[in-house]
Amino acid sequence: MGDAARARLGVGMVGYAFMGAAHSQAWRTAPRFFDLPLRTEMTAVVGRDAARVADAAARLGWESTETDWRRLLERDDIDLVDICTPGDTHAEIAIAALEAGKHVLCEKPLANSVAEAELMTAAAERAEARGVRSMVGFTYRRVPAIQLARQLVAEGRVGEVRHVRAQYLQDWLIDPATPLSWRLDRSKAGSGALGDIGAHAVDLAQFVTGQALIGVNGTLETFVRERPVAASSRGLTGEAGVGTGTVTVDDAAVFFGRLSGGGLASFEASRFAAGRKNAIRLEINGSRGSLAFDFEDMNVLHYFDGTEDSRIAGFRRIVVTEPDHPYVAAWWPPGHGLGYEHGFTHQVVDLVDDLAAGRAPAPSFADGLAVQRVLDAVERSSDGGGAWTEV
Amino acid sequence: MGDAARARLGVGMVGYAFMGAAHSQAWRTAPRFFDLPLRTEMTAVVGRDAARVADAAARLGWESTETDWRRLLERDDIDLVDICTPGDTHAEIAIAALEAGKHVLCEKPLANSVAEAELMTAAAERAEARGVRSMVGFTYRRVPAIQLARQLVAEGRVGEVRHVRAQYLQDWLIDPATPLSWRLDRSKAGSGALGDIGAHAVDLAQFVTGQALIGVNGTLETFVRERPVAASSRGLTGEAGVGTGTVTVDDAAVFFGRLSGGGLASFEASRFAAGRKNAIRLEINGSRGSLAFDFEDMNVLHYFDGTEDSRIAGFRRIVVTEPDHPYVAAWWPPGHGLGYEHGFTHQVVDLVDDLAAGRAPAPSFADGLAVQRVLDAVERSSDGGGAWTEV
Amino acid sequence: MGDAARARLGVGMVGYAFMGAAHSQAWRTAPRFFDLPLRTEMTAVVGRDAARVADAAARLGWESTETDWRRLLERDDIDLVDICTPGDTHAEIAIAALEAGKHVLCEKPLANSVAEAELMTAAAERAEARGVRSMVGFTYRRVPAIQLARQLVAEGRVGEVRHVRAQYLQDWLIDPATPLSWRLDRSKAGSGALGDIGAHAVDLAQFVTGQALIGVNGTLETFVRERPVAASSRGLTGEAGVGTGTVTVDDAAVFFGRLSGGGLASFEASRFAAGRKNAIRLEINGSRGSLAFDFEDMNVLHYFDGTEDSRIAGFRRIVVTEPDHPYVAAWWPPGHGLGYEHGFTHQVVDLVDDLAAGRAPAPSFADGLAVQRVLDAVERSSDGGGAWTEV
Amino acid sequence: MGDAARARLGVGMVGYAFMGAAHSQAWRTAPRFFDLPLRTEMTAVVGRDAARVADAAARLGWESTETDWRRLLERDDIDLVDICTPGDTHAEIAIAALEAGKHVLCEKPLANSVAEAELMTAAAERAEARGVRSMVGFTYRRVPAIQLARQLVAEGRVGEVRHVRAQYLQDWLIDPATPLSWRLDRSKAGSGALGDIGAHAVDLAQFVTGQALIGVNGTLETFVRERPVAASSRGLTGEAGVGTGTVTVDDAAVFFGRLSGGGLASFEASRFAAGRKNAIRLEINGSRGSLAFDFEDMNVLHYFDGTEDSRIAGFRRIVVTEPDHPYVAAWWPPGHGLGYEHGFTHQVVDLVDDLAAGRAPAPSFADGLAVQRVLDAVERSSDGGGAWTEV
Repeated sequence: MGDAARARLGVGMVGYAFMGAAHSQAWRTAPRFFDLPLRTEMTAVVGRDAARVADAAARLGWESTETDWRRLLERDDIDLVDICTPGDTHAEIAIAALEAGKHVLCEKPLANSVAEAELMTAAAERAEARGVRSMVGFTYRRVPAIQLARQLVAEGRVGEVRHVRAQYLQDWLIDPATPLSWRLDRSKAGSGALGDIGAHAVDLAQFVTGQALIGVNGTLETFVRERPVAASSRGLTGEAGVGTGTVTVDDAAVFFGRLSGGGLASFEASRFAAGRKNAIRLEINGSRGSLAFDFEDMNVLHYFDGTEDSRIAGFRRIVVTEPDHPYVAAWWPPGHGLGYEHGFTHQVVDLVDDLAAGRAPAPSFADGLAVQRVLDAVERSSDGGGAWTEV
Repeated sequence: MGDAARARLGVGMVGYAFMGAAHSQAWRTAPRFFDLPLRTEMTAVVGRDAARVADAAARLGWESTETDWRRLLERDDIDLVDICTPGDTHAEIAIAALEAGKHVLCEKPLANSVAEAELMTAAAERAEARGVRSMVGFTYRRVPAIQLARQLVAEGRVGEVRHVRAQYLQDWLIDPATPLSWRLDRSKAGSGALGDIGAHAVDLAQFVTGQALIGVNGTLETFVRERPVAASSRGLTGEAGVGTGTVTVDDAAVFFGRLSGGGLASFEASRFAAGRKNAIRLEINGSRGSLAFDFEDMNVLHYFDGTEDSRIAGFRRIVVTEPDHPYVAAWWPPGHGLGYEHGFTHQVVDLVDDLAAGRAPAPSFADGLAVQRVLDAVERSSDGGGAWTEV
Repeated sequence: MGDAARARLGVGMVGYAFMGAAHSQAWRTAPRFFDLPLRTEMTAVVGRDAARVADAAARLGWESTETDWRRLLERDDIDLVDICTPGDTHAEIAIAALEAGKHVLCEKPLANSVAEAELMTAAAERAEARGVRSMVGFTYRRVPAIQLARQLVAEGRVGEVRHVRAQYLQDWLIDPATPLSWRLDRSKAGSGALGDIGAHAVDLAQFVTGQALIGVNGTLETFVRERPVAASSRGLTGEAGVGTGTVTVDDAAVFFGRLSGGGLASFEASRFAAGRKNAIRLEINGSRGSLAFDFEDMNVLHYFDGTEDSRIAGFRRIVVTEPDHPYVAAWWPPGHGLGYEHGFTHQVVDLVDDLAAGRAPAPSFADGLAVQRVLDAVERSSDGGGAWTEV
Repeated sequence: MGDAARARLGVGMVGYAFMGAAHSQAWRTAPRFFDLPLRTEMTAVVGRDAARVADAAARLGWESTETDWRRLLERDDIDLVDICTPGDTHAEIAIAALEAGKHVLCEKPLANSVAEAELMTAAAERAEARGVRSMVGFTYRRVPAIQLARQLVAEGRVGEVRHVRAQYLQDWLIDPATPLSWRLDRSKAGSGALGDIGAHAVDLAQFVTGQALIGVNGTLETFVRERPVAASSRGLTGEAGVGTGTVTVDDAAVFFGRLSGGGLASFEASRFAAGRKNAIRLEINGSRGSLAFDFEDMNVLHYFDGTEDSRIAGFRRIVVTEPDHPYVAAWWPPGHGLGYEHGFTHQVVDLVDDLAAGRAPAPSFADGLAVQRVLDAVERSSDGGGAWTEV
């Protein structure tokens, strides 16, 4: 589509750390590989420190900078606000942006509490009525293998879902000398492994099965309760400073739940799984077949077709790089794998497609709220000794 | 060791179906590959049907037959009773045999209830005082990779255990047309997936970590509640007969628990995991490293050493077929894998070594009872909506 | 089948080291799991040292001993001679046994030279005319996954074979301090990696494809030419003695060839592949699909069906433990894997079935000769700088 | 580094198909994640069709277009010519560019013949003397796992190299209905699987081991000799047109060779390996350890340390996403994998670093020539029945 035929979409991004870098790469790359129906522009990036945000803008490719996100709402050249800040700021920014008529892409978790997430969802619904759109950034949904998994479930290829087994395992906190950072501070991050990575596991389980968790039993644990104070905050872990402070979030969460269709789902989220770097594992066992995925081998989906002759049946290792796989035709020939950041590019593609088509994007804030409610139920269950807790 | 120097051990086995075939192969094979300190003899096999037990004796290599297990207790040429019958018969046979001064090897689960298991354990302790020994048949402990795992934990190579992830997944009940069998009858089998295969998962978790589960939260589910009545009982599943009957045991169990050392353990046992045939998976994450095992690749143990330079660290795929691996020196050169039945042979080897040395064998009936108490706690938790239930 | 209805088959085995132990286990085990049409008896074992062969007989379960293999030919209670000695003795024993009217099972490689193998094959063909049978022991053919692979090729599931990739990799000679043994002595072993393990790779490639190699280009290499002299010969490697001696066989062989159907086949055999313990890898790529096997995961066959929708196509990991897989119904339920020695048991089963049915067993001595001719062509090619050499 | 401090590097790219898209993504992305010492600009892209090249420029992000590559040599704002056209054009463009004082990045294979590659290498050496640099695009060298493999070999961690096993397997030509394209035309492509993908296998083998192939024995094969004529040329395969034409290149190449250090190397390149999409497999067995890589799991390197206690030794699955792994620190946290195109970005980074530092980049045209000479030796060997052919 020629430029003349395409409306402009000016994007303003708030925050430019890990998530900001991933989102920037997506905004830069999406129009190069996909025929976007809108002419996206990386109009402004926001950070509190003028010098640092200017550096970031130059490095990441943003045209201008602001030191207060509220400025974005006043600018006519901003059509969409992309929120890449810690969870405690999401509600305020997102609600204000939506009320100012700006579309919003908000990183997950949607908020640090159900109450905030409810306010955001209400704001999103009001905005939706005015054609102002919102999306929460569960980017792992955009891994081609995950999209394929959802398609196969929807096509009935695994039959009735009996079991979901979802784990998100990392090990970056295993060393007690790793200092505190905002991710270990409940007031900033809302929760620990549960909200940061368990949220993804919950969203993927619900997304791929097309079902909701109706209740859970769970337990949370903080293995290392005191850590050195960080001198500065860089990367996931920061650098060591002086003295120690208290970890106010969970290091690990273990829970199981019941799906709306009657199946059993088990979950684990941990930052203490030695040797597991970013192992998002999802296994689904149904009455007709099974699926298995591990993000450490992200271009592969394993599929067992239980209707086949047992003599030749087996989990197929589908290398999800064929032109008929989701998103793949825009990229490289078969066998040329994609990486982590491609999910963010696909997120931009889907969002822009929806904006141009006047469709409500998914996952919506309501979807983010649904995940938040599951996380909240897990926390409440944990407080109650793991008792059954409805979502 | 020459025959003259070795005392004789006359074995009488009760039951000759799946487990009986495995035990027979073990009794036949152990003295061929290992230097046993006793001269084992396959003296008698017991079955209710005289003709069928005679066939079994001929096929499996037993010297004589009985149609009543009580006869074994009267025979002087029987030193050990090997119980391979369904769980509802274990208590009566085992207690009587121990009281008659016969050593006992009893298949798992030790019993169908905690009460029975307690009686058996008490009997075993009384017998022990008289030098009469007992062992429960958690044979998966004897897989070399599992023994190696336990050694590595005991050596501190994974550090403090943070997570255990244990699953035992099968799929042989996934077809609703699969008929009823004793394994689906609570009065015979005690429980379903929980007791049949979950018991192994619990035992392995406790055995490998050297820790006990102190409490659990769990849920049980029966996905298919009515099944055709079986015309006969052969193999795991029987053959279809007339009418339908009710499944009175669980098809799947999902639970998590707390280890005595403070770690979190999660469990799943299911006969509805399409494509998973006998997937006993055990993963342990500790403060210094991790271990992972899957019985579908039973000659392999994966080990991550978290103390190594991150540049070359990774899960090692240890092919557990080296002469310095447990049991292996007696078998084949490196890379020549063992199979399912070798665990039974190793069980015989360890048992006979202990008998000759005058040591109490492990796992003891008390170990079997410990597993039973966990299973019982899971059932009670499930009845109580998954609430925390102490073991 | 009752004993009365079955003719007796008296077996005499020559040699009782590694192969003798494996064969003994097979003769002991086959009648326990399979309904053999003949009543096999482990009648006699032969070794030069009377005391050691007596020990072996007791340990391995043979009824009597001899110190000269010629005695077997004179005994009426011996119907079959099972040859488990080094390759330099095969021709003499096998030919004499066949001429004496004894069936022969001969370990591979059939002989140490084509000339010997030709004499043996001629003897086998003369014997065959008199109903005296012979078989060469390529036991890896009897791994269920390999049998399944052959079936799938024969059914046309991979289409026209384009590529065969066969490797047999070990690492037990990698240490230059490993002493000399008969396996490193050309006069005893005939050749090194080529004949010992490359022979299996060649046989499997021909067996699974159903095609013959018509010519080869190859090279042999001896990486470590001097080794310590062994004090004694035990296991694969012996123990170190005094002084050094020359290795007179190859450490590794690399070659490729042309199949009778036009496909390309590449081969490697090495005892210097660090970390590969007994990695027999076979990959077949055809016009409609592919197969892949690795003995280090021996209960698995990978199969790619190229006729499937590319969206769900992928190599299936078939766990070859289903009742409809070759040999498996006699063993354990699905997912309960077999081990190295089961191939020897299957060999006995097939051989006894053929003897009872009056069929010529396979692989025949002619098949062994065919492999020998390929090995010979590789050696000649290597001598000629790797030039094309017809088989 | 601030813009003012950095010299500008104007890039002109010739060709904008598959390779052009990959190179464009690299030029766009490199400065966003890495601190490049030069200020790269995507100044011009060249294509014969003015309209199509204009489209490509807009889509891929180039500032201007040309329809004749010679124009680049006249433009002062072009400092480097990036050649992404088929192999038959490389020599003319590269030599002219170097003589015009432009640095050159040339896609592989360097040329379609040794003669051309020699001329290019001579030109590169003359240019080098004037500070004009050249590099050939063996991008798979820039996969972090491959770089790590080379480091481990260089550090002596595998010891003396005994075996290299390198395969590059694809299956996109397996369907005889796939039409002709320039890649199947000897006059355009030089050779088939050998030059297109075998070239990568040869380069990786030499790069990772740090050794050269000194001679080879090989064979080439064309399985499907007639194919439909393509109506147009898009993607790897084009679309079907009218009539058939002759395939003038090889579909597969199988060869082995001798390394300068005495090791044996075996190679396969095929576009007929059903189910293998882009399987670049490299295995190295040395006297102290082994390495294994498969591009279908590109973020992983398997490493066996043969000096370890055999009890815990095993191939480690190193997830090559740690900050201390090559290139990785610039990207994402551990476990967040990279994709195919990242190798091209790393190529730009290394090239720009070398240009700024006044170093000769690697791989040089001489390295490309070395690969070409191996390919030529394989072709000559194949013509001579696979006879030993020195490189």
